[in-house]
Amino acid sequence: MVFQYLNNRPLDEARSQYIALLQAQGLAPRAQTIPVPAAAGRMTARAVYAHICAPHYPACAMDGIAVRAADTFGASDTTPVSLSPEQYTLVDTGDPLPDGRDAVIMVEEVVFTQGEAVIRQAAAPWQHVRQIGEDICAGEMLLPGHTPISPAAIGAMLAAGVLEVEVLAKPVVGIIPTGDEVVPPAADPKPGDVMEFNSAIFSAMLEQWGASPRVYPIVPDREDAIRAALEGALEECDMVLVNAGSSAGREDYAAAVIGQVGEVFCHGLAIQPGKPAILGRRGAKPILGVPGYPVSGIIVMEQLLRPLVDLCLGRGAGQPELAQAVLSRRVVSSLKYREFVRVRLGQVGGRLVAAPLARGSGVVSSFMKADGILEIPQGSEGLEVGTQVQVRLLRPARELERTLVAIGSHDPLLDELADLLHQADPDAFMSSSHVGSMGGLMAIRRRETHMAGCHLLNEADGTYNTAILEKQFPQGGVYQVECVGRTQGLMVAPGNPLGITGFGDIARPGIRYVNRQKGSGTRILADYLCRKEGVDPAKVYGYDREEFTHTAVAAQIAGGTADAGMGILSAARIYGLDFLPVCVEQYDLIIPDYAWDTPMVRRVLDILAGPEFRARLEQLGGYTLDRPGRVRRVY
Amino acid sequence: MVFQYLNNRPLDEARSQYIALLQAQGLAPRAQTIPVPAAAGRMTARAVYAHICAPHYPACAMDGIAVRAADTFGASDTTPVSLSPEQYTLVDTGDPLPDGRDAVIMVEEVVFTQGEAVIRQAAAPWQHVRQIGEDICAGEMLLPGHTPISPAAIGAMLAAGVLEVEVLAKPVVGIIPTGDEVVPPAADPKPGDVMEFNSAIFSAMLEQWGASPRVYPIVPDREDAIRAALEGALEECDMVLVNAGSSAGREDYAAAVIGQVGEVFCHGLAIQPGKPAILGRRGAKPILGVPGYPVSGIIVMEQLLRPLVDLCLGRGAGQPELAQAVLSRRVVSSLKYREFVRVRLGQVGGRLVAAPLARGSGVVSSFMKADGILEIPQGSEGLEVGTQVQVRLLRPARELERTLVAIGSHDPLLDELADLLHQADPDAFMSSSHVGSMGGLMAIRRRETHMAGCHLLNEADGTYNTAILEKQFPQGGVYQVECVGRTQGLMVAPGNPLGITGFGDIARPGIRYVNRQKGSGTRILADYLCRKEGVDPAKVYGYDREEFTHTAVAAQIAGGTADAGMGILSAARIYGLDFLPVCVEQYDLIIPDYAWDTPMVRRVLDILAGPEFRARLEQLGGYTLDRPGRVRRVY
Repeated sequence: MVFQYLNNRPLDEARSQYIALLQAQGLAPRAQTIPVPAAAGRMTARAVYAHICAPHYPACAMDGIAVRAADTFGASDTTPVSLSPEQYTLVDTGDPLPDGRDAVIMVEEVVFTQGEAVIRQAAAPWQHVRQIGEDICAGEMLLPGHTPISPAAIGAMLAAGVLEVEVLAKPVVGIIPTGDEVVPPAADPKPGDVMEFNSAIFSAMLEQWGASPRVYPIVPDREDAIRAALEGALEECDMVLVNAGSSAGREDYAAAVIGQVGEVFCHGLAIQPGKPAILGRRGAKPILGVPGYPVSGIIVMEQLLRPLVDLCLGRGAGQPELAQAVLSRRVVSSLKYREFVRVRLGQVGGRLVAAPLARGSGVVSSFMKADGILEIPQGSEGLEVGTQVQVRLLRPARELERTLVAIGSHDPLLDELADLLHQADPDAFMSSSHVGSMGGLMAIRRRETHMAGCHLLNEADGTYNTAILEKQFPQGGVYQVECVGRTQGLMVAPGNPLGITGFGDIARPGIRYVNRQKGSGTRILADYLCRKEGVDPAKVYGYDREEFTHTAVAAQIAGGTADAGMGILSAARIYGLDFLPVCVEQYDLIIPDYAWDTPMVRRVLDILAGPEFRARLEQLGGYTLDRPGRVRRVY
Repeated sequence: MVFQYLNNRPLDEARSQYIALLQAQGLAPRAQTIPVPAAAGRMTARAVYAHICAPHYPACAMDGIAVRAADTFGASDTTPVSLSPEQYTLVDTGDPLPDGRDAVIMVEEVVFTQGEAVIRQAAAPWQHVRQIGEDICAGEMLLPGHTPISPAAIGAMLAAGVLEVEVLAKPVVGIIPTGDEVVPPAADPKPGDVMEFNSAIFSAMLEQWGASPRVYPIVPDREDAIRAALEGALEECDMVLVNAGSSAGREDYAAAVIGQVGEVFCHGLAIQPGKPAILGRRGAKPILGVPGYPVSGIIVMEQLLRPLVDLCLGRGAGQPELAQAVLSRRVVSSLKYREFVRVRLGQVGGRLVAAPLARGSGVVSSFMKADGILEIPQGSEGLEVGTQVQVRLLRPARELERTLVAIGSHDPLLDELADLLHQADPDAFMSSSHVGSMGGLMAIRRRETHMAGCHLLNEADGTYNTAILEKQFPQGGVYQVECVGRTQGLMVAPGNPLGITGFGDIARPGIRYVNRQKGSGTRILADYLCRKEGVDPAKVYGYDREEFTHTAVAAQIAGGTADAGMGILSAARIYGLDFLPVCVEQYDLIIPDYAWDTPMVRRVLDILAGPEFRARLEQLGGYTLDRPGRVRRVY
């Protein structure tokens, strides 16, 4: 096995040198001429001037009569003036002003008697006449170069006789997916099939930026095949991406191939995710080696390809929308890299709170959920909880203000609640993070959430939530709102092939358990059951294998990498697992004072009590409802 | 002539009742199923759930060897562990974890000796393994309903085995242009031809909003023809616009026809522009009668059609981006109407300044130039200069911060300057308003502009600008920056058919003069020439006919509605007019202290002194350059 070492070039330096190199080679915007009606949203290639005036003739601005103003002088209520048919012309709005006339009188102000037009007020010269060029004068600059064309600008150009316009051509960006294991997206892929959805993500990003993506067929991991594909794409495109194979493993050919058809300027950046990026070129055409993990790929696209697209479309870098936020969890970072952390954002109690999302490079859902990006500079070991940070917004700030934040215990019903909330009010959004019941209560104490799902058993008396709320909120300040009863139990493979009879069996040799994370209500329940049933957690294979949601536990069992795990009935049902019920627990929503009187919380309480929510829960299964939305207790 | 009276319904009331009526009739979003890769930017029709987990198998997260963690326990630097070929499997990133293995060791941490893999650190169970569902779990809600689909969401759906998605269908909006005088856009239209560019504007707006426009051929002003077109469009579209004929003139058939094929809910709104709008329907299909003037049409589209499109696309009304600004000119408004005033905005001296643009309904260029909309409520007679107003932004606030404001005397060179500035820095913009030299100096005194073009003659000594600056700025605070010398003269028709020999001739009977507005340097020059040449302005036909730019004066002469007017050589050249030179005057840029040290002003001074600016002026003609950009004097 050959092992190559990558560079660790700082991003800013590598990027600016790379762009300068490409510009020196001739990378620049290209112009094309298109019909004006098709030009909305495109960028002008150069300044656009009016060909003709608008209006291009003196036009009547009212329905009425065109006259010579001098003929009307002296007209008043007491001295009306009668105009003979030779002295006036009936006109409609938009008609050309007839020769010899220099004013228009509105039809409402004229009385017609026996062919004469009687008026009681003199007309001022040029009244109700749209002068030539009132709107636009021939020769006038309508739009400067490198300016986006708005709908109104389309109208202005057409009005000014400009029927075609030179715009900047959309750069054509070729995307070459590579990899032996890579297959087109499928509803039912085989183990080991890596679905090629990066090109769909990249294409959508490119379209959003105004470029024109061209996706090539998947190329196997063979140097000659990749080279042939790259050479072909370079003939047809302005820029080319080779997706994956950009790292330094035994089947990573991208760097070698780029070096053969052109030149590698830099391989390896001091960024995380995205470090194995390749910055290459042939002549002025950029060739990027983009890492295979989608999150790495997205970062490389944004940081390296977007500036090149902007350059070709005559756009400045612009200023990203930034906001100050408070970090809700500690983030550890490597000194070696500048790190891009996806965060969820919520406006809670007057502050913007940033909650870091899962950071794995493969976690494409983290980008789907992200409201912003937090950058941790190279040379920093990370940031402590509570730090004031600057985040780049991915959603409009005004949307964040209308987003209900739910941090706490996971239950699929929260997603249904989010859907129903947005359905009820399209301007309202809900974002939920799963940190377990205890994590949710901590988030309330730190004023980082509007509500928290919670199901914490008090072992002493078998009640839920009450005891812990009293302890956690000795000064009060929270409402305990009834939500659902839900059935917890042991999930096992369909047909229960290992004959598991109850929780006590999880320590049996040959049984692979999968657990929930510490602090989650379900973990606390499992710990309690261990004590009750005399199970030694240290003897349970997989007791320290932690998943963060009920469905993730179910997924391991369904996938055959675990045999048993605690979870709720609805999760077992999704995966068709067998289920050994253990208890019905109480799942409440804990809502702090500071969020209680907000319209969003009010609406959620209404939804909880409504028939649609009940129907959704019946669909999920395993829930009982008593009086959802009722305040159980105020602390 | 039949004269119909229109309603004057308040907009908010009419709109909400109209929408409620349409919803009661069944107007609602429609769903359609499309392939996920084509769904970027579309709205989900309902919640989308994951079909499969991502990853869908336990995957190796590193290139290296897959092992059973238990086989590695005890490995350390001092007690390395050798794994036999049966105990490890070579794996690449993305490979499925082989059966019986539960951990991956990175290739960098393995030494291979005679087929054995030697490791010096124990592997933790599940290390470097991407668990099933690490990213997404089957059954998990990926996106709520009525949510825009981002590029990352496309990736997440495909990763989760979701290959097709139900999205909200783009509402199809038919546009029927009507009018006998209406012709398709042409480079050289005849007098009286009204070019039909509204459908291009409306189409571009609809595309921007996510709807699907369908433009029908122009229909003549005949009731039966319009009815046939409307009936046809209603078969094919979700909504239909009848453009023009919505007023109450003798050829306005829209209301009658809408009443015949369906129902008119309201004809006439208390808004300006846009009052003759018709709100009609057939069943749940909206039919709008849209006024013919483009500005009225744009307002009606935004205020009435956009909410209907939003409704069909499951979008909330959102919050418009608002900003506080200081009004730079008095705006008079009618008590009867809620008025939408287009404004230019500039960030000057720490305040946002709103300058009202031309308000004619036909002035489509005002929408092209507008940075914001100022609403004046019904029942208000207008707003005084200096009033704090709230404006709805049409451009991002951050762009406004980087916009150089030039208010003052008009010269086409300012547009060239704007083009060169934006070319030099794509993040810099320039917006210029033409209010004459005196208006520019007033704008500086009110801290409303970063610079002002100025050419004010001091009759006493024939110098320019110096005397008036001393008078206007007794405390100083402005820089007088040299720009150009330019040739002023009398513009006359090509070949000078009336044999005009000089300024003194403008009072001759049969000569129609066209003037510039009071306060402009050119008007002051004309007034001076009148005195000098003994011309009585009251005897000059058209001396009170005021245009706001050199090109507008030239356009009147070229169009044959005037015979002579003062202006600069470059304007005469654009229109091919004859030109009788009168003087070479000095055109300076006056720049206040408070703008002097800004990067944008610095850049403009650089551009003034550069060869590109000189080349542009040579193109325009009639300019002399001495040392443009030099500070003549500081006051």
